[in-house]
Parts: sequence; C-alpha cells; structure tokens
Amino acid sequence: MARPIITFTSDFGHEDWFVGVVHGVLNGVCPDSHVVDLTHTIPPGRIARAAFLLEAAAPDFPPGTVHLAVVDPGVGTSRRALAVAARGQLFVGPDNGLLDWALRDPAARVHAVTDESLFRQPVSRTFHARDVFAPVAARLACGLNIADVGPQVRDPVRLPHAVPESRDGAIEGCIMFVDRFGNALTNIHEHDLERAFPGVPEARLEVQVLRHAIRGLARAYGEHPRGAVVAIVGSSGRIEIAQVGGDCATRLGIGEGDPVTVRSPEARPEDHFGEPAVH
Amino acid sequence: MARPIITFTSDFGHEDWFVGVVHGVLNGVCPDSHVVDLTHTIPPGRIARAAFLLEAAAPDFPPGTVHLAVVDPGVGTSRRALAVAARGQLFVGPDNGLLDWALRDPAARVHAVTDESLFRQPVSRTFHARDVFAPVAARLACGLNIADVGPQVRDPVRLPHAVPESRDGAIEGCIMFVDRFGNALTNIHEHDLERAFPGVPEARLEVQVLRHAIRGLARAYGEHPRGAVVAIVGSSGRIEIAQVGGDCATRLGIGEGDPVTVRSPEARPEDHFGEPAVH
Amino acid sequence: MARPIITFTSDFGHEDWFVGVVHGVLNGVCPDSHVVDLTHTIPPGRIARAAFLLEAAAPDFPPGTVHLAVVDPGVGTSRRALAVAARGQLFVGPDNGLLDWALRDPAARVHAVTDESLFRQPVSRTFHARDVFAPVAARLACGLNIADVGPQVRDPVRLPHAVPESRDGAIEGCIMFVDRFGNALTNIHEHDLERAFPGVPEARLEVQVLRHAIRGLARAYGEHPRGAVVAIVGSSGRIEIAQVGGDCATRLGIGEGDPVTVRSPEARPEDHFGEPAVH
Repeated sequence: MARPIITFTSDFGHEDWFVGVVHGVLNGVCPDSHVVDLTHTIPPGRIARAAFLLEAAAPDFPPGTVHLAVVDPGVGTSRRALAVAARGQLFVGPDNGLLDWALRDPAARVHAVTDESLFRQPVSRTFHARDVFAPVAARLACGLNIADVGPQVRDPVRLPHAVPESRDGAIEGCIMFVDRFGNALTNIHEHDLERAFPGVPEARLEVQVLRHAIRGLARAYGEHPRGAVVAIVGSSGRIEIAQVGGDCATRLGIGEGDPVTVRSPEARPEDHFGEPAVH
Repeated sequence: MARPIITFTSDFGHEDWFVGVVHGVLNGVCPDSHVVDLTHTIPPGRIARAAFLLEAAAPDFPPGTVHLAVVDPGVGTSRRALAVAARGQLFVGPDNGLLDWALRDPAARVHAVTDESLFRQPVSRTFHARDVFAPVAARLACGLNIADVGPQVRDPVRLPHAVPESRDGAIEGCIMFVDRFGNALTNIHEHDLERAFPGVPEARLEVQVLRHAIRGLARAYGEHPRGAVVAIVGSSGRIEIAQVGGDCATRLGIGEGDPVTVRSPEARPEDHFGEPAVH
Repeated sequence: MARPIITFTSDFGHEDWFVGVVHGVLNGVCPDSHVVDLTHTIPPGRIARAAFLLEAAAPDFPPGTVHLAVVDPGVGTSRRALAVAARGQLFVGPDNGLLDWALRDPAARVHAVTDESLFRQPVSRTFHARDVFAPVAARLACGLNIADVGPQVRDPVRLPHAVPESRDGAIEGCIMFVDRFGNALTNIHEHDLERAFPGVPEARLEVQVLRHAIRGLARAYGEHPRGAVVAIVGSSGRIEIAQVGGDCATRLGIGEGDPVTVRSPEARPEDHFGEPAVH
C-alpha cells in the first residue's frame, strides 16, 4: 500500500522551528506518512491567500491525501478546529474559512475536532498546529475515521468566494493570486470559457484586466516574443495573465482583486497586448 | 520500530546546494532515518541564535532523536567536533557553544568526534557538515554508541547563558529570540513564575520590557483586541511579548537582549499595555 | 536495497505550491524514492546558475541518483525534454543547457523524452515539471530504462562553458557562483593547480581577482584573522575567494563572470590580501 500523503501549508515561515516541530509530530503519530510542504511563507494571517493556494494545489494530489493547513490568527480562542472529508480527500485546520474549497463540495462532511484524547498534551495557548491539528491530521492519515474526531458541524465559517459572473455575453472574474513569476492567476476556469463561448476558438477571445486587453489565449509562453503579455490557461486550469520572460504583475501594475473580463470578439477595449505584442 | 529522527539546523540558507547534499549524506549513511529541517536561515555565524532555537525545539522531539546543528565559523581549524548524549537525545555539532542546552544537562556525556573512519573522505577544509558531522549523526541515528566516536571531553565550549534572576521579589530576564511574527520570546519560564509568585494568579502579574508594562498574562491572543500588546506563556513554556495581529518587536522597538521583568502586583511601571489595551 | 534518491532543483521558489505538487507526483509514481531538494530559489530563468549548482552538487550523490532540474523559460514550445545517463547518474530536464555538466561526459547517453504514456495527463501548457519531467524522473528512479523514454539525441543544447585557460604560466579562470556567505566560487579546480604548478606549495601560489591579489591558499578560514580575505580550495574542489567571518563578494565588489588568475610566485599584482591580511 502507498504511504499516506499529508500536505502541510502554513504562515510559519522558515526562520523559526515551528515547521520542523510539526513534521516531528506528524512523523511520530503516523510514521508511515509522507509529509509534503506546500508553502510556509503565507504572509502572517492571510487566510484567503492560503485558501486559494490549497484550492489550486489539492487537486494534484491523490485521493485520500490529508491536507493540514494552519493560518490561525484566532489560536487559543473558542474558534473551532475542523476536519473535513470532501472531494475524496481530507482537510484539517482552523474554522476560519481556510478550508473553504473543501466546504464548497456539496457532499462535504464537516466535523469539529473536540476529542482531546487525540491531542498532544498539554495543549499550548499559541501552537495548535503542533498540539491539535498535526496529531489529528496524522491520525486521519493513519486511518482514523473522521466521525471519531468530534461532532458534525453545520455552520463552518466560509470565505467570501469570488465567483466569475456572466454579463452581456462576457465573463467577469478577478485576479486571485500572483505567483513568484509575477503571473496573475484568475478565478476564471477553462470550463467557464467552454460554457460561455461554445465553439469560439481561444485565439479569438479577448481578456481584459484593468485597462489592458490581450487578444487570444496563448498556447505556450515561448511561442511569443520575450516581453509580450499573454493570457494562457495555467496548470490549474485557470486563466493566467503573464509576461513572457518577465514579471507581469509589476509590468502592468495589477494585483489580487483586480477585475478580469473575458469577451468574445466584438468587444472594444482601449489598448492591446498580445499578438502582435507590445514589448 | 519507528524510524530514527535526525533534525538539522544550520546557517546554510536555501539558495545553495549545501542543505541538499547533507540530506544526501544522512540518507546514504542511515537510509532508515527521517530528516527534519528545523531551520537553515540562521544568519551566518550567529551561534547563540541557533543554540536558542535548538533549546526551544528539541524538547518537542521524542527520546533518541539526533540533533545535527552546524553553525561553524571555525570550520577547518582545531576547534573540536562534539557528540553529546543529554536529556534523552543526541546532539552533534562544532564545539563552539552551539550545543549549550545539551551541555547544561548535568548528566550530559560529551565526546570529541575523532574517529576518522566515520568521516566522508576526503575531508574538505570548509564543509564539515557534509564530511564530519552528518556522517557521525547518521551513524548515531543508526545505533552507533556515542563512546565510539572518540574520547570523552571535560571542557566543552560553553555559551554565556542568560539565566533569569530574582531580585526584590521580581524576576529579571531578557528577550532571547524574536520570531517571524514579531513575538519576543524571553528566558523566563512558566515554572519560574510558579516558584517566584506561588499562588498569585497570572492575571495579576505584571511584565515589563524596557519602559513598556503589560498587566496580566493573556490566555490566548484572540481574547484581546487586534493591536493589543500581551504577555503570554508561549508554546515552549516561555513568556512571550506579542501584539495581537501585529509585529510586537517592531511596534515596541524591542529586540534580543532587552531586559524583561516580571513583578507581582505592587510594582509601578511608567506606562501600560494589556487590558484595557493601548492600540 | 537503498531507496533511490531523486534530487530536485528549480526556480519555483517557496511562495507557491509548485514544489509541493512535484513532490506529490514523484512520490505517487515512485513511492520508494527519497526526494532531496537542492534549491528552488534559482532566480527565474537563470539557466547557467542552476547548471553550475547541479555540477557542484551532483558528485556528492551516490551512483544511480536521478537529478530532476527544471528552469524552463521555454515551457510549452517545441524545446525538447531530455533524459541523460552520464557520470553514473541520471539527469532529467529541459533541453536548454541546464544539463550541460552531464553532457560534458563523453560517454553521456542522451534521449529525448517523447513517450507520452509516461506523462501525467492532460499535459498543461505551463507546468511540465509536474506533467512531464517529474513522472519521467520518478519512472527512471524506479528502474525504467533510459532508452524507453524516447529516441537518442545527438545535438542537445549546450551552455557556453567557461574553461580555465593556461597562459604565460598562469591559470586564467573566472567566478562562477557567489554563495550565501558571499564566497566566490571559481571554475579553477584543485587538479588544475597540480597540473599547472607541479611541486609548487599552495602557500606560494597567488590568486588574483580583478585588482585584488591573495598570497597563498588558506588551509582553513579559521586560521586567519576575522576580516582577512583568503583563497581556499572549497568543498567541491574549486578555488573559492572568501572573507573570514564576512561577505567577500560585497567586500571586494566581485561577482559572477569576473576573471580570476592563479600565478606562481614571480607574479606582481597591485595590492595584496592574505597573510599578513588586510582587514
């Protein structure tokens, strides 16, 4: 049998010992597990960024993967700890919206983590990743039934979720995440395009972000000249705005929350990037 | 049997290949070991910071864990390499004070690492983590007796250790470490409080750092308003000075080495934070 | 049998989820493999830096190790994916010069990765580390024959390779890499010295970088006073220029590409560091 995978996402950074200690706990409780760090450089307390990252990464892991996510400004208060079974995987983290993608699965089973016999004792006031979330995630990875962590929860905390909308034949979404390369990931999926513009070739769509418009979806960064700004379906199936060989977010001055519109050919934006590209 | 854990702490950073190569050596010498990185972003040569980090993290690992720690400005000189059995765990690193916490155990057994047959050959002039410390740590993790690494040492290099003092009914300590969140960890432990102020409720103690005073110990960050400065017993049992949702060290202008005093109620400091909090 | 090692080098950074997802794929395809991260903080697209890092690190890994390296500005274009068997190890990455060190082995066997049945489907336009390189690296680690990935390639893309030259009895090389500590690694190897200056003691050689000259090779950083600038044979066998307890590259204003000359005693440079050292 394959070793169970536990992914681990947090805002703990790499300067302190927090990530290492959690690895120790996971390994101690479930020695067979294989722990994969997603990121630990979420800016402190930025729940929405971590939630999006989990949404983008989780589908790439096999069924049964346990995702441990801890961005937890409310640690030590009465905020609940959650375990969620959804989308064929398991999710453990604080009840503050971090697990929103799992919660959007209509079949999600949501439990409060309350069985203190599962916890590392004594439970500290400030480090529930070590004392509560990691031990429970490791037990789930090693086969514990989610129903055994605590009672079912009907009102988990949700995150305002920016869903793209259709208006006047256009899709209106927004930028969700800017990655290391300066690529701006939107909340508009490939399947949104297929639904809104059936039969329209990608090359004829137009993507607009703020006052910048890009004609056509690119098939590869490298098919465009260095410096060109392109829209492309990225590796998680979302439309990304990118600059070939450059940092698009800085180049265009765009960032998280900025509106993005995809139109069919007749739209008439103010300026144009893409083929032929402005450099 | 559980796989042996080796923790690894260094000032190597993540930009080069040094950490990866050490992982390769550990894995090659003791394939069953599970290597857990604590941190590799210790500023180059900052022995005291690494020593404190090891002291804070090691108690969270199970008995038998091997801690490999390399902050080694004297690499290639006659400074000794040490292996220490203390507090139920093993510690391997240069003899420069880095392992001071282990050495403070009165029952510590301290050996110089001299048996060259254990080393990776040829031994380089600049990278003993790879050539000396890692092979020895891995052999210890796989069962080598500490007495077999070399002769006992009676005079290991110690670090000046800031122990909190009791004076006029107050505990006088200092800030040891500022973490990623800007929390200032002190050298004052929970048990120091119990000893100095028996029966005094935590809520009535007063913590002073520089000219800032905080009334009472908090039970959780989240029970105080955003922006409040609180003192709290942190996850390693030490008093921490923190700002709810903020960076306390920057806010108060405090840092490593600054004095911290805990008093019983009658003390009269100049200004006050905490409940009701100054924002 | 020892678990196969896969090293992983990229320009993905640690802020996003890309590294974690690749770990998931490697583990999923070859559960027995042990993945060792070399670095993921190569500046985006800096192929030459990653190529040098791989050259410096790979010899420290055992025969049979698979090195997965992805710095891939041409992702999604017709640039080929390569698998190379060389120097007793295996290398997988884009055909853009990144694997140049492996290709310099006259016995290297070079194959284009074309068998799509090995890929993760569907193959994205932007993330071939996940969809192409990682699955193939994992299959090779688990025993796949390199001839089964695709046809042999006779014209892989090479990197301009700065080889040190002998002129007027001196070795002329250059700085290849500045590490975290500010040490400047050159392309001049210990064996170049033995060949060019047979019988000349290291202490009498002179190393010059820009207008700075250093007399003699140091045996250890710590044998010189703090602040001294020294030349030393580093852990990968190359001459390094370093400052004891300091950042040499910043101190001397030197960087990648700067020329470095090693002379026998009679040379007469303009200024001198080393013993006795300038502080």
